[in-house]
Amino acid sequence: MPELRKDPIVGRWVIIASERAKRPNELKGEGQAQVEPGLCPFCEGHEDKTPPEILAYRERGTRANGPGWRIRVVPNRFPALKIEGNLNKRGDGIYDKMVGVGAHEVIIESPKHRISTAELTDSNVQEVLWVYRDRLVDLKKDSRLVHGMIFKNVGAAAGASLEHTHSQLIVTPIVPISVWDEMTGALEFYNYRGRCIFCDMVQQELSFEKRVVLDTPHFTAVCPFASRFPFETWILPKAHSSHFENIPKPGVDDLGHVLRDVLSKLEHALDDPPYNYIIHTAPFDHQELPHYHWHIEIIPRLTKVAGFEWGTGFYINPVPPEDAAAFLREVDCRPASPQRERFERTTMV
Amino acid sequence: MPELRKDPIVGRWVIIASERAKRPNELKGEGQAQVEPGLCPFCEGHEDKTPPEILAYRERGTRANGPGWRIRVVPNRFPALKIEGNLNKRGDGIYDKMVGVGAHEVIIESPKHRISTAELTDSNVQEVLWVYRDRLVDLKKDSRLVHGMIFKNVGAAAGASLEHTHSQLIVTPIVPISVWDEMTGALEFYNYRGRCIFCDMVQQELSFEKRVVLDTPHFTAVCPFASRFPFETWILPKAHSSHFENIPKPGVDDLGHVLRDVLSKLEHALDDPPYNYIIHTAPFDHQELPHYHWHIEIIPRLTKVAGFEWGTGFYINPVPPEDAAAFLREVDCRPASPQRERFERTTMV
Repeated sequence: MPELRKDPIVGRWVIIASERAKRPNELKGEGQAQVEPGLCPFCEGHEDKTPPEILAYRERGTRANGPGWRIRVVPNRFPALKIEGNLNKRGDGIYDKMVGVGAHEVIIESPKHRISTAELTDSNVQEVLWVYRDRLVDLKKDSRLVHGMIFKNVGAAAGASLEHTHSQLIVTPIVPISVWDEMTGALEFYNYRGRCIFCDMVQQELSFEKRVVLDTPHFTAVCPFASRFPFETWILPKAHSSHFENIPKPGVDDLGHVLRDVLSKLEHALDDPPYNYIIHTAPFDHQELPHYHWHIEIIPRLTKVAGFEWGTGFYINPVPPEDAAAFLREVDCRPASPQRERFERTTMV
Repeated sequence: MPELRKDPIVGRWVIIASERAKRPNELKGEGQAQVEPGLCPFCEGHEDKTPPEILAYRERGTRANGPGWRIRVVPNRFPALKIEGNLNKRGDGIYDKMVGVGAHEVIIESPKHRISTAELTDSNVQEVLWVYRDRLVDLKKDSRLVHGMIFKNVGAAAGASLEHTHSQLIVTPIVPISVWDEMTGALEFYNYRGRCIFCDMVQQELSFEKRVVLDTPHFTAVCPFASRFPFETWILPKAHSSHFENIPKPGVDDLGHVLRDVLSKLEHALDDPPYNYIIHTAPFDHQELPHYHWHIEIIPRLTKVAGFEWGTGFYINPVPPEDAAAFLREVDCRPASPQRERFERTTMV
């Protein structure tokens, strides 16, 4: 079984998962290995090559674990955490550990092998969002688990090990340190000023305008003031809400459009960069919180992150977010556009 | 001028340095581009290709900015921070920023173009440590600056942009968030138990033995309990001390040997992996602290770090530190050894 271990100094939990070592190293170096479509376990018709599905949005009359699905959720075959067992929390001198109980699921976003975000329709993306929400609502019922993290790695340089478009869900029995840090920082602001810092941020960005990429009835996409990475972009709901899974139907409708649009802009502007997105949302074991505000962070992987940067949290970003936002605002993503305007990547080494 | 900006939620400072975009992208992809020795600005005889030296350990009778040096410190030509100017700290609504004042220096560790750690002598490494210490002691006098971070990137995948062996020093007017988090965590432990958590860690590791890589009179090298990365190794002084620059002479003598030995073990075991090391030390503006303990963290870059891992602080490590330490203990690093024992890298995808 995987083991969760806590760093006694900073309180960061790490998953020691030696069984992960067996997973296929499909991607080598920077390039994305071309898997023959006939071998991809995520393609339609290969449902027997994954563990049995947990959830699928399917055409009427089709059967579980057969073709006919639009989106399919399966357990990760090489899970970082496993759903069976007791946590068995224990100490060893200054150290704390527990059994790596949790969920690690794969959300296969399309039956087609390789499809970029620009090729998806708004309603495809909306369905992916509904799947995210359905899985969180379901896993929340398990009292051993306290937090769900949804993320997507696109491209080898962003850590993707299979190229078929998919996102992942890791549900943990502890709150990851970054969520904890955000919650703590936001609570401090709330205690001092009585307002949500993310709500303040949305307001300040909309009035300043220069870091805004997109503004819709329900969402704002901005390149944040203290961007760690070139073209880092956050999507924030305008109405306060701490839990992603509480998103209302009009919110999903709008977010499908916004997420597709922002990712298409990044794909067009940066020539299909590797990227990650992560949904930051409040832990399960809280009701709606007045100080925390869920959001999506999108990080194109254009710069090499030196070890000292993720070792120290001290980032050097060569592209001011104002420049990145100005560029992204202007990018035309209509599929028909033959002249793709691209940010000159040589300026971002 | 570069700008320092603070993330209002978690308090992380970021350097927005658009001038860095101009630096040469010597390294492409994963491979290390072969720079013709005749063009390397760090090689002996090319002293005119760098800004004038700040410090050099030289042979008697040789002149500044000419050949005859063993180690040479120069300003980074593409600095993340600049030494001139006032901090001009200011706010803008919820945001805080200041001018990017600081120092960014390059420590050229050898006049030879490409030399691996295994090829260095203990006394080479000791001199590099003396240079680190001399630069910190000097920069500490500048009241605008509060923290010095020394790090080394080896290999393109670890973020090195020039292959000639060198380390770097970034001195900042703020305390980087990781140092702040470590200091806070360690202080909490100290307030509760009246002991330094790092001292406790050294003691527990030495008695447990299984994560110890090397044990000498002054230092212990261990693969930490909650290792984020395969073969992550920390070197900790056995005697309590919060500031690296206060290291006594016998400490430098021993550390030169330990650092060379640990890096050689990693080079031998993992077939010259890209890696980073970072010296974690207390901020300048404190006297000796009872709760903080300087140390060196060495991180081989064997696994691809997915964005969600450094975005969330949630690491998945496929190699238990007990296995890594057992392997490193056994590695024979004598230069004469023709049969290099290697950890099977295919197990670490």
